[in-house]
Amino acid sequence: MRSKTAFTLGIALFAAGFIALARNAHAQTQQPVVRLAEIEIDPQYVAPYRAALQEGIEAAIRLEPGVLTLCAVSVKNHPEQVRVFEVYASQAAYQAHLQTPHFKKYKTTTQGMVRSLKLIETDPILLRSRQALSLE
Amino acid sequence: MRSKTAFTLGIALFAAGFIALARNAHAQTQQPVVRLAEIEIDPQYVAPYRAALQEGIEAAIRLEPGVLTLCAVSVKNHPEQVRVFEVYASQAAYQAHLQTPHFKKYKTTTQGMVRSLKLIETDPILLRSRQALSLE
Repeated sequence: MRSKTAFTLGIALFAAGFIALARNAHAQTQQPVVRLAEIEIDPQYVAPYRAALQEGIEAAIRLEPGVLTLCAVSVKNHPEQVRVFEVYASQAAYQAHLQTPHFKKYKTTTQGMVRSLKLIETDPILLRSRQALSLE
Repeated sequence: MRSKTAFTLGIALFAAGFIALARNAHAQTQQPVVRLAEIEIDPQYVAPYRAALQEGIEAAIRLEPGVLTLCAVSVKNHPEQVRVFEVYASQAAYQAHLQTPHFKKYKTTTQGMVRSLKLIETDPILLRSRQALSLE
């Protein structure tokens, strides 16, 4: 009888643990992914680089529901120093983005134009945007 | 007669120049202002700093139509290294933001918590956000 109680308790604990783990995994995958890219462009390629970046951003926002925000800027008076602020709906959305034809085209086109690329992974604190952005 | 023609021409050129300057000034002031803040927090104040930052962001988005985006993140595994991506509708909207009670409260509250603050002024290349963001 005692062993049966222990067995039942074991099953119950196992089930509770499984549910907790599954919930945690779900929360993890549903968290937005936010990244900052710091890109230095070979100054002679600033114009074609910008064109390729703009094309890639427009396509991603048009075609990928999981790409929430892509904001590209250059440091004032340093057009060769580009920063991109990126928000994806989830880790899965980010991974899917890397496999799209428009992202691969951007990477191939700009390969010889980029001097250095630093990707900064982040933890969101608070992300607020009043409206959809469509500015340049 | 010649001097009258020259006078009329002068007036016309002056008017055209004035309109061109005014249009340029209007375009300048209507351009969005995009900034990146890189903030290093004294590690012992990470929690109260985050609370003050979140309160300031929520108030700005709720009360200021000219504050379009405020996205705060910390570098992965470095909660003391905060980055804020900021988009204002115009230079006037940005200047107005600096004078609000909630921004002044944020500055006063966090004064002793911030080790260093680097403000990076930028030129927008392309700003795209699919929707209003309300994530944390």
